[in-house]
Amino acid sequence: MRIEILNTGTELLLGNTVNTHAAWFGRELFKLGLRIARQTTVPDGEAIRDAVAESLDRADVLIVTGGLGPTSDDLTREITAGVLGLEMITDQAALRSLENFFTLRGRPMAEANRKQALVPVGCDVLPNPNGTAPGVYVPPRLNGRSNCAVFLLPGPPRELYPMVHTEVMPRLRALSGVENPPSVLELKFTGIGESDFHQGIDARLEETPGLEYGYCAHIGEVDLRLIGSPDVLDRGRAIALESFGKHLISDDGSSLEQTVVRLLTEMRLTLATAESCTGGLISSRVTDVPGASAVFTHGFVTYANSAKVALLGVSPEDLEAHGAVSETVACQMAAGALQASGADIAVAVTGIAGPDGGTPDKPVGTAWIGIAARDARTIAFKVFHPRNRHDFKLAVSQAALEAVRRALLS
Amino acid sequence: MRIEILNTGTELLLGNTVNTHAAWFGRELFKLGLRIARQTTVPDGEAIRDAVAESLDRADVLIVTGGLGPTSDDLTREITAGVLGLEMITDQAALRSLENFFTLRGRPMAEANRKQALVPVGCDVLPNPNGTAPGVYVPPRLNGRSNCAVFLLPGPPRELYPMVHTEVMPRLRALSGVENPPSVLELKFTGIGESDFHQGIDARLEETPGLEYGYCAHIGEVDLRLIGSPDVLDRGRAIALESFGKHLISDDGSSLEQTVVRLLTEMRLTLATAESCTGGLISSRVTDVPGASAVFTHGFVTYANSAKVALLGVSPEDLEAHGAVSETVACQMAAGALQASGADIAVAVTGIAGPDGGTPDKPVGTAWIGIAARDARTIAFKVFHPRNRHDFKLAVSQAALEAVRRALLS
Repeated sequence: MRIEILNTGTELLLGNTVNTHAAWFGRELFKLGLRIARQTTVPDGEAIRDAVAESLDRADVLIVTGGLGPTSDDLTREITAGVLGLEMITDQAALRSLENFFTLRGRPMAEANRKQALVPVGCDVLPNPNGTAPGVYVPPRLNGRSNCAVFLLPGPPRELYPMVHTEVMPRLRALSGVENPPSVLELKFTGIGESDFHQGIDARLEETPGLEYGYCAHIGEVDLRLIGSPDVLDRGRAIALESFGKHLISDDGSSLEQTVVRLLTEMRLTLATAESCTGGLISSRVTDVPGASAVFTHGFVTYANSAKVALLGVSPEDLEAHGAVSETVACQMAAGALQASGADIAVAVTGIAGPDGGTPDKPVGTAWIGIAARDARTIAFKVFHPRNRHDFKLAVSQAALEAVRRALLS
Repeated sequence: MRIEILNTGTELLLGNTVNTHAAWFGRELFKLGLRIARQTTVPDGEAIRDAVAESLDRADVLIVTGGLGPTSDDLTREITAGVLGLEMITDQAALRSLENFFTLRGRPMAEANRKQALVPVGCDVLPNPNGTAPGVYVPPRLNGRSNCAVFLLPGPPRELYPMVHTEVMPRLRALSGVENPPSVLELKFTGIGESDFHQGIDARLEETPGLEYGYCAHIGEVDLRLIGSPDVLDRGRAIALESFGKHLISDDGSSLEQTVVRLLTEMRLTLATAESCTGGLISSRVTDVPGASAVFTHGFVTYANSAKVALLGVSPEDLEAHGAVSETVACQMAAGALQASGADIAVAVTGIAGPDGGTPDKPVGTAWIGIAARDARTIAFKVFHPRNRHDFKLAVSQAALEAVRRALLS
């Protein structure tokens, strides 16, 4: 089944907005065992006409996003109906739903919004509980030009995503004729690189019949996506975990910080952080997770050496003797954070983010990570991520959170 | 001049990688007064053929990215040459440059890399100092099919962006025939919304002859892009600043955190942060800026009330009486951070990120921001950003950094 995506929006081509729809649709369709054959972006307005017509002649399914709003350059509905050879009528249910939307918010509905209830005759109107623009589904039998099924969907992700899940995915599954779409399993790993996977398990994954797989590498993380029947997924998972099980973050899409907060919650433990080079990124990631307040209490961002001494009790003599980026200071920071917070476990980082401050001994990209816990020996280890400042912070925060995860499981 | 972008790469359509090329090209071309008429993504391999052929028949300039690598599915060069009706030859200079690339890195060059020096006869070879794949420029006179100029460029941004700046932009400028491309001015504002601009200045910008403008709204920030001759830009800037001057973050592309670090550096002042609901995001943003260590010393992430009391000296009685999310506590946090750090200015935030924890009086999205400075009265103000947890943190951190900026300028 050939699926094409057409994204409309001048802002996508002026560079004001990065188009994330294509990647998102790619991941969602992959779950049904489907793929995007082509994705196109055109500006708002008349440019949509040619792009729709060309796709209709090539594709089995065309998904159009954007241009369903109330303004004069929102022309997706009208233009597509024209190309399909369909009349437009006002859908009364859609009109009432629009009126309700405004009533609920205590605002009068502008006359311009009425056109959002105009739909091609006979099509399915897809409800939009999160915005004003209903979606439209034109089944192949209504298409006067080709045998292509057409979806017209709103552009904003918070309107688009729920509509795709409730209205589009079931129809795509029916259109594709696949009775049992393959299952998908996503395994997230940290502490190893994509090339380790290539060398370590690609050959064995390749020779597993019925298994498709792919990698997605982020900073400090590699996601392995497996697709196949449940049996085949079990085999793929076993291969991956046999080689890299101790690096597994999650098998349910959870991020590293979500995993750490979940473990802390289950174990009824609390965490404190002491950050120098990451500047608060570790605590910010932890507090991105709902429920973090039950397990995270204190974060110390000790950017200056004086702060390390005053807040964490780091020894000025050791700072002088070993430097702030050292095993000794990382251990003292972690132990000090544990002591000052009363938490059960503390993680500390100190490093050289650059661009300045590197030395031959301690080049830009060097960091020490310390871990302290009640009734355990405080330890520290070194990592090296010679990257730009932003990516360095992210890589070090990932290594620090992974150290917490391992300490909790040890 | 009709410009089309063709991005090749299976990973872009499987959702492993978000395609940021289109937005980046949009911004770069806008600087020359040019726009993208259409952007297309196709998978690696044979799908490129149809997409190239169609673009050649529509566009004046076709820019293709990706598929210049050494592997068997890197077919952009061969397929494009075929569609253009051009023979391929090995470019000796490109081959030497490839060999040098590997020699410099002390690695043998694989046989597969040799094909990266194959180029269509007569074209310009665009040097790639940052990778192995040279780019290709096929001027219209060599195109055996249409009058379209064609660029073949590498996919990875760190190879693509420099090549576009040094090799593509000058050729596009010549092709466009525009002698003096319009100037661009980007003004970043915070504390007001896009609709304020529409109502406040759109009419006056519209009636300024020769001025093009556009907005890009982020969380807590609106960027106004002006395009025109230097005189026209001066007029546009005057209109914007007359209405919204006190909300201006920068006119040189600097972010709010960059602006705050610059002001602190110039004024030789230091900053401390005390964060509850933002969890370290403010200090992390400040420390994203190179040179932050000279002006940022202490950050307190006091997520638990006990941390607010112990580290910042917040009164337990006031926490009980007013709640953690209150004017009183925000002021005490800011004053406590100033005191404990010895910094010149301190900013504090306390709020309800949700999804739980809201009350009728203090719904999810409520935050208080406190500012304390030496020899000044400590003040706090309330903001309300009922968004998801991540966006709430970003909006509150933006409001807090803006409060610092204003305090520094007051």
